[in-house]
Amino acid sequence: MTAVRLGLVIEALGGVLHGDPEALVAGLASLESATSADLSFLSNPKYRRQLAASRAGCIIVAPEFMIEALSRGACIVTDQPYVYFARLTQFWKKHLQASEDVSNEPRIHPSAVVHPLASISASAFIGPLCVVERGATIGAHSVLKARVSVGENCHVGERCILHSGVVLGADGFGFAPHQGEWEKIEQLGAVRLGHDVEVGANTCIDRGALGDTVIEDGVKLDNLIQIGHNVRIGRHSALAGCVGVAGSAVIGAHCTVGGGAVILGHLVLADHVHISAASVVTRSLLKPGHYSGIFPIDDNASWEKNAATLKQLHRLRERLLHLEKLLMP
Amino acid sequence: MTAVRLGLVIEALGGVLHGDPEALVAGLASLESATSADLSFLSNPKYRRQLAASRAGCIIVAPEFMIEALSRGACIVTDQPYVYFARLTQFWKKHLQASEDVSNEPRIHPSAVVHPLASISASAFIGPLCVVERGATIGAHSVLKARVSVGENCHVGERCILHSGVVLGADGFGFAPHQGEWEKIEQLGAVRLGHDVEVGANTCIDRGALGDTVIEDGVKLDNLIQIGHNVRIGRHSALAGCVGVAGSAVIGAHCTVGGGAVILGHLVLADHVHISAASVVTRSLLKPGHYSGIFPIDDNASWEKNAATLKQLHRLRERLLHLEKLLMP
Amino acid sequence: MTAVRLGLVIEALGGVLHGDPEALVAGLASLESATSADLSFLSNPKYRRQLAASRAGCIIVAPEFMIEALSRGACIVTDQPYVYFARLTQFWKKHLQASEDVSNEPRIHPSAVVHPLASISASAFIGPLCVVERGATIGAHSVLKARVSVGENCHVGERCILHSGVVLGADGFGFAPHQGEWEKIEQLGAVRLGHDVEVGANTCIDRGALGDTVIEDGVKLDNLIQIGHNVRIGRHSALAGCVGVAGSAVIGAHCTVGGGAVILGHLVLADHVHISAASVVTRSLLKPGHYSGIFPIDDNASWEKNAATLKQLHRLRERLLHLEKLLMP
Repeated sequence: MTAVRLGLVIEALGGVLHGDPEALVAGLASLESATSADLSFLSNPKYRRQLAASRAGCIIVAPEFMIEALSRGACIVTDQPYVYFARLTQFWKKHLQASEDVSNEPRIHPSAVVHPLASISASAFIGPLCVVERGATIGAHSVLKARVSVGENCHVGERCILHSGVVLGADGFGFAPHQGEWEKIEQLGAVRLGHDVEVGANTCIDRGALGDTVIEDGVKLDNLIQIGHNVRIGRHSALAGCVGVAGSAVIGAHCTVGGGAVILGHLVLADHVHISAASVVTRSLLKPGHYSGIFPIDDNASWEKNAATLKQLHRLRERLLHLEKLLMP
Repeated sequence: MTAVRLGLVIEALGGVLHGDPEALVAGLASLESATSADLSFLSNPKYRRQLAASRAGCIIVAPEFMIEALSRGACIVTDQPYVYFARLTQFWKKHLQASEDVSNEPRIHPSAVVHPLASISASAFIGPLCVVERGATIGAHSVLKARVSVGENCHVGERCILHSGVVLGADGFGFAPHQGEWEKIEQLGAVRLGHDVEVGANTCIDRGALGDTVIEDGVKLDNLIQIGHNVRIGRHSALAGCVGVAGSAVIGAHCTVGGGAVILGHLVLADHVHISAASVVTRSLLKPGHYSGIFPIDDNASWEKNAATLKQLHRLRERLLHLEKLLMP
Repeated sequence: MTAVRLGLVIEALGGVLHGDPEALVAGLASLESATSADLSFLSNPKYRRQLAASRAGCIIVAPEFMIEALSRGACIVTDQPYVYFARLTQFWKKHLQASEDVSNEPRIHPSAVVHPLASISASAFIGPLCVVERGATIGAHSVLKARVSVGENCHVGERCILHSGVVLGADGFGFAPHQGEWEKIEQLGAVRLGHDVEVGANTCIDRGALGDTVIEDGVKLDNLIQIGHNVRIGRHSALAGCVGVAGSAVIGAHCTVGGGAVILGHLVLADHVHISAASVVTRSLLKPGHYSGIFPIDDNASWEKNAATLKQLHRLRERLLHLEKLLMP
């Protein structure tokens, strides 16, 4: 029994309903897959043509699509349909959880291993088989899902979410070369997450060598990301899956980094820098903007020919220069 | 005491033995490292020259290598030596396990945390320190190795293997930008694995935003792979380690993706598409075939010269065009 | 109370102190962030200009910087400041731990799941929620941090450190294609780590198919690395985060591999080969040296133009050749 009255959605989230507030919604769905029991949304105008064909019971739209939406049925009009939809998912999740009665789940799962000298907010949630070590602190309303490690003295702010398998505070990768071997540099710093940080599954954030590794408020990290020691990531930046950030790099605020990108150590990225997926950042980027660097994919035979030629590219340039001198002396 | 009579191998797996069925085999080994107590195989003709020199007690070969194999000792002749070898490893493993008497190991390890509303097949195996959450289902004969997470409402088919550290059903990476911050889109879908799916260590498969993330029958995923929300991977496709597949990408059946490749979101790959290692797929690939896109490795000095020239490549093309107009107006 | 007399540092680590041996040091810090209570160091001459401005109470320097260091306060002179600093961090960590009295922590955390047929050295440390399976061995003074998996029959040498989430001995990725499906090749080998190996968080080292996967003495692996089956990594090589090494690759001794690099299967890298970050090694590299291969990052508009031209590169070379024949027949 999870159906919700449309009127209740409006009460909770605002917006203007054109339709029957007593109509029931049983789920959320995309325009394409929605049935008449679903609530859907149109945020990206490129999906506009799906609007007319959608069988959704009600569709969230921006004012400019109201007429079009009304011609097919109920709609909720709001200035920012995508933000509205995001909040609707939050509303919906709470609604589902209420119906599942999870209220009596323990705040700290009995299988978690929490050091007596760790400090866990009374409103934080520590999932099964987590490890929270000596001196770590977990802020109010933060959630550690299953199997999360928070190392010694690491700090998690408020309203953070750490997904399964996250490792906060493993040693940074620091060794001094000595006679052909590696002398370990003990990593004496910690990790500090601000508020509203989300960290994806199996992502690792290393502790600093001397100072701390710092993830500022509102940063969102996807799965399987590696953050090296003493990195700093500015407020509200978002990094997609499989990104690697090497030690002491500084990423500004409001940046985005596409999946699989690599950022070398000790570099600085200004605020509002956007890196395309799989690009390798080898120099500081001090101006806001969109940067890319990947080899374009091609059928393998074409790639092989172009890649082979690429190894002579510098020589080709010299040959071209030679011709230019002959022709335009 | 794990030695096996050659005759027993033939009884179990077929093939034609040229040699003494009473001879004992103590292990499996490559042609190079095998001793007279080992059973070995030749599948790739390029290793043919290792055949004569091998000290293996018996060698599995295709019919065309029978004479050559017999000239040095016993052999098993079969049409598909590599498939035969694969089945031999399965036979061998069962044989080893029988000798270790693992029959009385618990089906659900007592250290695993299984929600009372999860549904575990009576023939499934849940390893130590796994977490299986509310509403999850684990199909018949499936195996979760140590420290696997299966999130709420996620479904694992029959005969699947999930290696240590796998995370099924962490939240997909979904946020709506709002006034410079990120509004979380709760991920209301789940993950569904078909039958005979294998998922490598520390690989993550995110739950869908609205619908489910779907991995079809027979798919094989290596370690440290990231599968974004609402991805669909078709039957019997195989992805090597460290691959990243962004949200809503659709990979066809019988595809292979090389290690470290990245597939961007919302793309479609046809059936029988093969992606070279470390390539970045930035557009849909609707024709079967082999696609590549990596920068060729070179000694660093050469690479630096070519990479520097690459940044003027478009300009070089214009200069070439200019010369062509001069010479061939 | 963690302050330490400078004289005690000298007693423990050597070097020549120019300053008051009774002065107290409360922490270690970089030249930039140090206060008068901190001990700092100068190892890379490019940070020389930070020396004069540093407020550190004492600075570790090489002999050539002694005069400069003395002009601002106390210093410790040593031939290899970076190695000295590394050892100082080790000294400092022990000092901190002594003050925290961790001496009575259990050698095997009660939450760890250790198979009765595993063999754990009496001086090894097994952290919370680790899994050590049947037949595995953990050598003297080795440390498994929280949530580490060591699979059946895998061997960890002495003085190794395995960080949280490491998976040793998951199955290698081996399947024989058979009628459009994949027949599993059971992985019958194991993993063997030498002495003094460090393995970063969530890194995976797969067990061999027939023989073992071998990591030799002194190898350092960063986080989120994938090591395929039957790989061998030579002594004192170091691999940075997110590297992928495919099956049966052989990496020599004293190699370094930058973050995010990919090494394809069955290749051989000689000793003293150095791979730049994010490069893809597609052929054996039999000569020591520094190798690179990444697409240079650029602003997106420039990249798009150059990348588009790149797909015609082979054709451009032919056009150039044509002009050369016209002009220089």
